[in-house]
Amino acid sequence: MKNLLLASTSTIYGSGYLEYLLPELKRLFSDAKEVVFIPYARPSGISCNEYTAITSKAFSVIDISVKGIHEFTDEQLALKNAQGIFVGGGNTFVLVKELYDRNLMDVLKDSIERGVPYLGTSAGSNICGVSMQTTNDMPIVKPPNYTTLEVIPLNINAHYLDPDPSSKHKGETREIRIKEFHVYNDTPVLGLREGSWLEAVKKAIVLKGNLTARFFEKDQTPVEIPPGTNLWKFL
Amino acid sequence: MKNLLLASTSTIYGSGYLEYLLPELKRLFSDAKEVVFIPYARPSGISCNEYTAITSKAFSVIDISVKGIHEFTDEQLALKNAQGIFVGGGNTFVLVKELYDRNLMDVLKDSIERGVPYLGTSAGSNICGVSMQTTNDMPIVKPPNYTTLEVIPLNINAHYLDPDPSSKHKGETREIRIKEFHVYNDTPVLGLREGSWLEAVKKAIVLKGNLTARFFEKDQTPVEIPPGTNLWKFL
Repeated sequence: MKNLLLASTSTIYGSGYLEYLLPELKRLFSDAKEVVFIPYARPSGISCNEYTAITSKAFSVIDISVKGIHEFTDEQLALKNAQGIFVGGGNTFVLVKELYDRNLMDVLKDSIERGVPYLGTSAGSNICGVSMQTTNDMPIVKPPNYTTLEVIPLNINAHYLDPDPSSKHKGETREIRIKEFHVYNDTPVLGLREGSWLEAVKKAIVLKGNLTARFFEKDQTPVEIPPGTNLWKFL
Repeated sequence: MKNLLLASTSTIYGSGYLEYLLPELKRLFSDAKEVVFIPYARPSGISCNEYTAITSKAFSVIDISVKGIHEFTDEQLALKNAQGIFVGGGNTFVLVKELYDRNLMDVLKDSIERGVPYLGTSAGSNICGVSMQTTNDMPIVKPPNYTTLEVIPLNINAHYLDPDPSSKHKGETREIRIKEFHVYNDTPVLGLREGSWLEAVKKAIVLKGNLTARFFEKDQTPVEIPPGTNLWKFL
């Protein structure tokens, strides 16, 4: 029985790291004394120790301790025995490459499917989809494969941004990029705005937070999904 | 003797496709009656025929005909014999995959180095750098390799955008993404704003247009480069 919380972002404007999610995290990790943290996405290139310290501080508010997976001698065993798992945001290419290089992809999927509570933010949410191919990140390293955990049957586009009608910029909008994705791929994509998250438990994948999300299917006009919707009916 | 014009964008705000570049293109392709167009980046997923028709119409204003490379029976020969080459923008992953799959990367590099006039816009400029790893595009297909033509000894970030100080969005700024690139890579990166282009002839790589460009080197504070600067002195 899966138990996932997949957030668009770790941090919303005007609030501290993970702060807006703390009530949810208290519930998600109610049976966990320690959460295993995967820091390999390394936002802004910070070290695994730095990233783990930041996360540890945020979790201390709800009395949960955090241990970085890089601190374990056997990383696979760490995931097998974890009471809770958190994969933080950063660069998705770096994260996916590290997970493959360290042979952690399968054991991570297995732990999630056994029901170990899982928190993902940004890149950590993206990897729960079918592939990492709707990431916004630069390909700063080359992962062996774009396939990810596929614990939900769709792809997430984190930090989803609406086109700005006043913009003079001619680079592609997020919507155009996702439309291009669907020229070559069939997987549905959810554009998850900052402040939104998915709660995936058993066969329910429910949109949470105050905002709608934008749902893209190949050859279809995108639609806005209201909070509280169980996405399974679209999948 | 190389002869390249590498533009950040094909189109600037309030102007038609390639319109702002036409005086430059007249000069660049002064000895060409026909330009071979590589449409494989397929912006918004449009077909190669559609893309070639749009390009052909733009070039007709300066009396140059355009033939899509997909219309030739021997694509390598088309590049060998080309009087001019234009690689248009779109998705860089799609473009690079097609160039590798069709065995065109080496012959394209060779033609450029023999001095065939070359125009690149956006993805078509990006591939002249050392790697495609500073693209803004989504990895909607998986190219076998991120290495590109390396006809200039730096990477381009096209459609460069400055951080918006009023933004409440928490996704990475372009500057942060390039900083992350430099955690794993040494290649200098030029953030080329829309309306700017590089003119690369012999050993000169000169910034053109009215705007400054932002130059990023590993472990250095980024600097603004004024128009008219020959970038070779930084490389």
